[in-house]
Formats: sequence, structure tokens, C-alpha cells
Amino acid sequence: MSPEFVDRSRARSLDESDIEAIAVGAAILGTGGGGNPYVGSLRAKEQLRAGRTIEVVDLDALAPDAMVVSVGGIGAPVVGIEKIEKGDECLQALRALEEYVGRPADAMVAAEIGGSNSIEPMITAAQAGIPVVDADGMGRAFPEVQMSTYFIYGHVPAPAALADEKGNRVLYTRVQDMYRLERLARTATVDMGAAAGFATAPMRGDFVQRYAVPSTLTQCLELGHTVARARRERRNVVEAVRASQQGVRLFDGKIADVRRELKGGFAVGRVRLDGIDGNRGERAEIDIQNENLVFRREGVVEATVPDLIIVLDADSGQSITTEVLRYGLRVSVLALPCHPLLRTPEALKVIGPAAFGYPDVPYRPLAAEGSHDATVSG
Amino acid sequence: MSPEFVDRSRARSLDESDIEAIAVGAAILGTGGGGNPYVGSLRAKEQLRAGRTIEVVDLDALAPDAMVVSVGGIGAPVVGIEKIEKGDECLQALRALEEYVGRPADAMVAAEIGGSNSIEPMITAAQAGIPVVDADGMGRAFPEVQMSTYFIYGHVPAPAALADEKGNRVLYTRVQDMYRLERLARTATVDMGAAAGFATAPMRGDFVQRYAVPSTLTQCLELGHTVARARRERRNVVEAVRASQQGVRLFDGKIADVRRELKGGFAVGRVRLDGIDGNRGERAEIDIQNENLVFRREGVVEATVPDLIIVLDADSGQSITTEVLRYGLRVSVLALPCHPLLRTPEALKVIGPAAFGYPDVPYRPLAAEGSHDATVSG
Repeated sequence: MSPEFVDRSRARSLDESDIEAIAVGAAILGTGGGGNPYVGSLRAKEQLRAGRTIEVVDLDALAPDAMVVSVGGIGAPVVGIEKIEKGDECLQALRALEEYVGRPADAMVAAEIGGSNSIEPMITAAQAGIPVVDADGMGRAFPEVQMSTYFIYGHVPAPAALADEKGNRVLYTRVQDMYRLERLARTATVDMGAAAGFATAPMRGDFVQRYAVPSTLTQCLELGHTVARARRERRNVVEAVRASQQGVRLFDGKIADVRRELKGGFAVGRVRLDGIDGNRGERAEIDIQNENLVFRREGVVEATVPDLIIVLDADSGQSITTEVLRYGLRVSVLALPCHPLLRTPEALKVIGPAAFGYPDVPYRPLAAEGSHDATVSG
Repeated sequence: MSPEFVDRSRARSLDESDIEAIAVGAAILGTGGGGNPYVGSLRAKEQLRAGRTIEVVDLDALAPDAMVVSVGGIGAPVVGIEKIEKGDECLQALRALEEYVGRPADAMVAAEIGGSNSIEPMITAAQAGIPVVDADGMGRAFPEVQMSTYFIYGHVPAPAALADEKGNRVLYTRVQDMYRLERLARTATVDMGAAAGFATAPMRGDFVQRYAVPSTLTQCLELGHTVARARRERRNVVEAVRASQQGVRLFDGKIADVRRELKGGFAVGRVRLDGIDGNRGERAEIDIQNENLVFRREGVVEATVPDLIIVLDADSGQSITTEVLRYGLRVSVLALPCHPLLRTPEALKVIGPAAFGYPDVPYRPLAAEGSHDATVSG
């Protein structure tokens, strides 16, 4: 990293409370997936205690020809619970990539801000001594590597690198497309014990500036602060989160049934909800594929990817990831509109309902749904 | 390739009839697996028709610091029948490796002389304009990459490269051991459509001289000539093959049953034989895992890996690969002793019966079995 590629003069250094807040926000934006950021936040705090710094820069701090690398853990979230990473898989993947391209990275950026992969680039940035950009490629979490704005808007699949805690390093030096990269990396990850660090092809600063979802680390931080403030002030956390994000409160219910299985590295399933409180007598269901994909009320679709469908504990406001959904839990379902970069025709081809196996479900942008007005104001 | 690394002055150029003979010999030494070398032999002949040459050099033509690379197709033989390679997957894998190490290879060498992978290094050598060494790492075929003398005697797993016909290239730059490399490459190959070109880590000339099974291309060539001569002279091909290799004629039988399934990329199964001619009234069976693994007569083990168990058509002497075994076929089962490099304790750990899932079957070197004397002389 050399000064001309990133302007670090306006960088903000994160402290432990920032990391805790970001982890809370990232869990919410994970829309049920992306893995729990809590363990990652502990590892990020360890970096600070080891004397390293986590510096955040805005998108406009990047020079056009800065080399920006996105890293993240890859694997099934169900496995993530049990397999704690050694802690430098992503750094090893970054090093493999740097060795191959013959140049060190100038900054890290998240591929997804939702879940544990919001934290990984911060940890790697601290380890590598470079800043992390306040942005990501999803503004949420998605189950597959190619489902980021980077790849939707033309980023190349190679070279990419995969590394595990045993020191194995795999480089994808030529790959026909992102679907192939995703598949190759996913099955290699299963071979590696279902968790590995992944670094995708270096991006130029000007590309990231144009196509990343901006300010999402800040959004996480603010979400975390919103939750903390509501708890401190004994206000309803769910409502505080909804209001701060101009979201829609879709449903309050008790989990009546959870079907979930591990399919090719993904947690796939469906959750059924019986309405409580204002939704008593109603039934709803959420389809999941690592993340919450589709929300239906009485069999009618009301919210879908790429908009964010968020399940929170009705009482504590704790975000509920798909792997801890269980019978009897009382939850509130919120929906937040996704970033405009995720709503273009080219984006919907990759992250719209059809891309997740719902060819007959049209994407209707959340804000356009007038029928939710009553819920929104309640 | 530079002259000081390989002495090409004594190189022999193969012609089309040599390639045909080698393909016949390689099919026999494939012990049922390794894929049918016939398609490969057509592709090798195409190289000659395109004006390229296939030069063979002896092990002693290598300088100690020559860079020797082994390439081969990787995949399940059952798929090999239907999926014809584009033809330069192995060359692409070699190029990926050369790009990574920053130096061109001086010579190619086969990992296995049995089956189609006897031919691949010749094709790649012709394409790359370098010679192929008269040797291999098995003296036969085995189902997995690590089952070669190279890796048994300490060759490193990385860097290795995988490439497919769509232009995908994967580099394994650090790998903990050969089992991991085998597993990573095998599952990536399944992602690639179950066939790819694989180049393992560059070897030094002096290492190959010490640990390769020598003169096995010549052995193939001679086997092919033996078969052709016996056919021309209307002699029994099976007996000609047995005599030329000092082998053991284990059994003549009719296939009574074939069980075979594709498991994780391998053709796994068992063949039952009812004796004919001199073996009338006897029953035998052969266990297969891509290759013929274990031969039993009346339930008693008589030959096992790493010795070669070869199934030939009883009448034509045509070698029968495991994927074309079928009910009713009249076959002769031969056994040939493997090379001494395959019989050491370290080799047996990797390619002995226990390594293939037969912990209770001790390896008894074939020549030591006095009970076969009658058969041998018959």
C-alpha cells in the first residue's frame, strides 16, 4: 500500500465498541444468513488488542488505480457455528492473490455487509496494515459469491484465491464465469472442511467507487447504536430498527415449523409462522436459502429478494439467523428496501426471485407496496 | 527447453504404428482402468499429422536439474467414454504451471503408463515441442494421483494445476499433502464436467531418474508388438502376452455378474466369473475401483494390488477395461508382478490392499506364489 493509492488522512479508526455495534448491525443486514458476526467481532477485537488498527476510509479516498480486494469466509453457515476459523484464512487468500499478481493490495472491501463477512475484511485489513472501505457489494448478505454488485456490473472472476486453516492455497487463474468460480470455490471449500478464506480478483478504485453499495459499514454501525440506544432506553428494539431504516414491519408471529437441510453447502428450508399480537389469526412463511428469500402471508408473496427480509426476536430485537430458527420462537419480520444498484434488470437476473428458483415470482420493489402503509405507520 | 537440460541427441521419434502399439500395451497395463487409450492414440496421431513430433528420451538423457512435468487426464473412466477432450487441457495445465513457476518445462513424463494417461504426456510433449521420458510413476494404472512412485518417494504436492476445455485454470500453490491435492483436484474435476487436464508439481531430472518406473513406454510398445505378432501368426494372444511378461494365467471364465457404480468419481464394483476350459467348475471374482484390485478364487485371495490383474478377452486377447465388463463375456485373467519400487513398505502403505479398503488382505508378492507354478508353465 502506497500513499498515492488511498488517502488515509481522513481514515477513521474503529474501537471495540464500534466493532460490537457493527456486528449487531451486520447480523440484522444478514437477513438470516452470512453467518453470525459475533465470533468475527471477537477476532476483530483481538486485532485491536494485539496493537493493530482497523482503519475505515470512504469510497472517495480511493485513487482510480488503487488495488482493492474483497475477502470473506466461504462455507455453509450451519458449519460456521462449529468450525471456528484459525483467523488468517482470508489473509492467506489475500497473500496468494498478491503473490500471483505481483503487487500488494491497497485496501480491503467487503463483498457482503450482512453477517460474518462484514467483519472478515476488517480483520484482514488490520493484519495486512491497510484500510477497509466503507462499502460492500450487496448491502446485505447473499448465499453466492457472484451475487454482488461487483460481479453483476462486470468484474472479472479471475484471479481469485482460496485458503484454509491447514495452509492449503488454491488459485483460480482463469475462470469462464462467476458461476463456475462460485461452484469451484464452493466444492473446494467443502473439501477443506466447509470453511475457507476467499479473495476475489483485485478491483480498481474507480470500479469500486462506481459499483459498491456505499456507506454500509456506517449503516451497520448506526444500526448497532440504534439497537443499543433502544435497549438502554427500554424502547421496543424492533420498532426502533424499523423506524431507523424506513422499513416495513411485515409480521409478528410464533414459529410453528422449521424445515431446514444442508444441500450442497447451503442451508435450505422453510419457516412457518402463526400470527401473534396484531397478526393473530394470520399465517405466514419464509423460504430460506442461507438467507431469508421470500415472505408469504396466507400463501401470497409480499416481499422477496433482493429486498431485505429480516427476522428479529419479537421481545429482545435480537436478529435471528436461519440456523437458529426454532419452534416456538416469537419473532417480528421486517423488510427493508435494497439499494438501487440491486434493482436494475441486470441485478435482478442474478439476485431476483427467479435466480433463486422462483421463476413465477415477479420482483415488486418493496416501497411500491402501498398495501403495507398501515403496517409501516404502526 | 534448453539443450543442457535434456540430451535429445539419442531421442527416438514415434510414428503412427508405434502409437498404435503403445495404445494396445497401455490398455493391457491399465489393469482395467486408466481409461481407454484408443481415443488418445487418435489424438496423438493427429499431432504427427499436424507436423509435430513425439520424441522419447531415456531417463539418463535428463540433466539432474531438468524440469520434468507429469500431466494426465483426471476423471472417471465411465465419463471418459462420452466426454471427448478438446485436446489441450493438459497443455493448458502445463502452461498454468509454467507461468506460475516462471520457467518452461524441459520434458514430460507419465504419471501412469496404464490407460489413456500413457498417451496424454506424449500429446502434450508434441504440443509443447519437448520430449517425453520413457518411464512413468506406476508401471500400471491406479485410481488416484498420489498413488505414484513420485509421491510415494517424497515428491511435493504443490504447485499443481488443473485445466478444462472451457479455459478454466486452477492452481494449487500450497497443499498440505497429496491426499488433499487428490481430493481438491478430483472434486474440481467433477465441477468441470468430470474430465480435466492435470499437471503435478515440476520434478527434477535426478529425482525422476531415481524414482520413476523405467522403460515403461518401451514395455507398452513391445506389448503392442507382441499382440500384433500373435494375431498375425494366429497364435493365442493371451498366452503370448503372458509369456512375454513372465506373467501368471490366473483364470479363464465367463462373466456371470457385474456390479458397478459411480462413487465420488470412481467406478467401483465386483465382477463374478464362472470357470471355463481349464477352470470349469471353479468360481472367481475381481473387485474393481477403476482398476482391477483383488482377484479371488473360491473366495480366497490370489492376487492383489499393486501387482497387475489384467482381464483380456479369452478369444481375441483384447484388453477389457472395467467400464466395458459385461455379462457373458469370456475372459482370461492374467497377473503380472509389479515393479520393485511398488513393493516397498512405503509404497504398500499407499497402494497395497489396505490402502484400497482391504485392511485384512496382506500383500503377497505375485512371484512368491508357488501354487501357480502349474498355471505359469501352462
